[in-house]
Amino acid sequence: MNQFKLPPVTDFHRIHPPQLDPPPRLLLGPGPSNAHPRVLQALGMRQVGHLDPYFLQVMEEIKELLRYAWQTGNSFTIPVSGTGSAAMEAAIANLVEPGDVILVGVNGYFGERLCEMASRYGGDVRRLEKAWGQVFSLTEIQEALETHRPAILALVHAETSTGAAQPLDGVGELCQSYDCLLLVDTVTSLGGVPLFVDAWGIDAAYSGSQKCLSCPPGIAPLTFNDRAMEKVLNRRTKVTSWYLDMTLVGQYWGQERVYHHTAPINMNYALREALRLVAEEGLSERWQRHQNNAELFWMGLADLGLECHVEHQHRLASLTTVRVPKGVDGAKVVRFLRSHYNIEIANGLGPLAGQVWRIGLMGFNSRVENVLLLLSALREALASVR
Amino acid sequence: MNQFKLPPVTDFHRIHPPQLDPPPRLLLGPGPSNAHPRVLQALGMRQVGHLDPYFLQVMEEIKELLRYAWQTGNSFTIPVSGTGSAAMEAAIANLVEPGDVILVGVNGYFGERLCEMASRYGGDVRRLEKAWGQVFSLTEIQEALETHRPAILALVHAETSTGAAQPLDGVGELCQSYDCLLLVDTVTSLGGVPLFVDAWGIDAAYSGSQKCLSCPPGIAPLTFNDRAMEKVLNRRTKVTSWYLDMTLVGQYWGQERVYHHTAPINMNYALREALRLVAEEGLSERWQRHQNNAELFWMGLADLGLECHVEHQHRLASLTTVRVPKGVDGAKVVRFLRSHYNIEIANGLGPLAGQVWRIGLMGFNSRVENVLLLLSALREALASVR
Repeated sequence: MNQFKLPPVTDFHRIHPPQLDPPPRLLLGPGPSNAHPRVLQALGMRQVGHLDPYFLQVMEEIKELLRYAWQTGNSFTIPVSGTGSAAMEAAIANLVEPGDVILVGVNGYFGERLCEMASRYGGDVRRLEKAWGQVFSLTEIQEALETHRPAILALVHAETSTGAAQPLDGVGELCQSYDCLLLVDTVTSLGGVPLFVDAWGIDAAYSGSQKCLSCPPGIAPLTFNDRAMEKVLNRRTKVTSWYLDMTLVGQYWGQERVYHHTAPINMNYALREALRLVAEEGLSERWQRHQNNAELFWMGLADLGLECHVEHQHRLASLTTVRVPKGVDGAKVVRFLRSHYNIEIANGLGPLAGQVWRIGLMGFNSRVENVLLLLSALREALASVR
Repeated sequence: MNQFKLPPVTDFHRIHPPQLDPPPRLLLGPGPSNAHPRVLQALGMRQVGHLDPYFLQVMEEIKELLRYAWQTGNSFTIPVSGTGSAAMEAAIANLVEPGDVILVGVNGYFGERLCEMASRYGGDVRRLEKAWGQVFSLTEIQEALETHRPAILALVHAETSTGAAQPLDGVGELCQSYDCLLLVDTVTSLGGVPLFVDAWGIDAAYSGSQKCLSCPPGIAPLTFNDRAMEKVLNRRTKVTSWYLDMTLVGQYWGQERVYHHTAPINMNYALREALRLVAEEGLSERWQRHQNNAELFWMGLADLGLECHVEHQHRLASLTTVRVPKGVDGAKVVRFLRSHYNIEIANGLGPLAGQVWRIGLMGFNSRVENVLLLLSALREALASVR
């Protein structure tokens, strides 16, 4: 086989684990949510090559369906070949040049992450801070823009760590008047709560697949408008990340079809199906369904004597933070729900660790029967651990 | 739903493409190869969360199975949440610090890519060059190490653009004597051709899922030995890429289980199944199967009057570059095979564009019936386009 002698093959590490048989979890945490059965079916379909005419057609359909979901006409609207964090990094890596002032709204875990990423890419990071669970007013945003005069303002529309929805109406206009790009994290809002990229003047946005789109994690939407693309195409420096350099990736997703990396074919199949379901249902109907089921859940929580961490008007329909009652071990409830009922919810992060549970009703999982089951299970869990 | 008035939802971009129905392609190009049916089945299985005890077990099994496939005991052996290019970038981003001299063997497209990535991360890139399709001798490598005294030597074990297999016996010892890390691209060799990470003294290696492992693209193995980890853990600077920072990712894949990003659950399911198939078959048997089918294919090519671009002793069993005969339009043959027989092969890249076809017999696709079919189809195609 080779001209030189090969070493012996060892059977260390040659294990024979059993066939995969995942437990039937109902994923009501902050994500992943359960994929729609049609999405799982699409995921397992036979492959074609990443330059196959059939796949090129799939790519075009995905771009178009993403535009509908985001309510944007942006030409550059693509899925990044990684998870939501990869799309977040793609946005930062391409939009931030060393020395750029970037103002980040930090009222939760993902605002912190934006700061960390922007700093690694050489950004001059300024923080606009607020307690976890609160949101920024237009006045606060304007004052911060006035003070910092940033090249980019980054806000988290739907903070997965707190369950708060940042109002965005008017922020885009403000940013334009300050000649600043508006970058928005829509990981937990896309396909679940009202979101208008163009009408709200958002210049760049990214999301994940495993939240309100009900597609498994591993592919992540990204959109840049012309203002954002102008910045990307006129960079003085190359993007440090080759994998996430959108001038290169864009040549594969654009008409040039230049090979960059092998697209994750099956994850793209799955995302297409997830987005097809969004287009079938219609955005208004889908948002209303999320809101209705969330309201039902919040009423049920009140009946159980439980309180939400975020005030009603800023609460995300897709993710609720519920305060852990005094004297209750929150982590014990999480384990109880998983071990007794195969239900996943999550503990709080950062300053909310031990203080809240994070409960998601996202995409396919936003169904009235899940609300009923979860409320019953929570009642049982609380009775058991108190 | 919100306290402010929402813009109207528009139905621009609300398309209704038909149900996914990919053509039944036989993927005999440079990758992706067809996934094994058991892998596609695993891919579509119901999800659990990325911190679910069941998934943590799956993660441990994947690490162990990867160690077997790579013949390594490396503790840090994980799948990166992206395609092979992401794992390549993870290796470069973590091992190269600004100013580090990195010597790259450039005898094909992926050597070029290594140079580009290393340069973006601040590496002082030195090129050891050879014509596409040739390999480096131990003497040439030693001379270059002597000249450049690099911190890292990067070689492509299996050049997907040329079909050449770089001999690695003795290179590890050389690198150790020059106090240099050996980084190896094993994208098109892992699971298909002989590869011994530990016995060959390889310090860091990465691969893809969609070649000889017969798993869809979207997840990519990476391994660092203790020498490589020592460099990573003693960096003077943070890794620019947060997504690919292995000190953070390692805390999720290690015992700490600290959340970093949401792992692509289903892609991990698929990789586990692909690696389980490798462990079932056995590496020696698998390598022999690849070699036998390649030899059969090469004999058949000779019968058709076709020549291989790489000399026999350095030919990859997983990927063959076949010279396009004089007077034949290579691209036309590629299209003919796809449109008439649903067979994918690929054109040459770079200096080999128009000169060769790239034909893969990888993983599940390395079967005698595929060799017979491909040879017949090639005969028909040549008769038709001449």
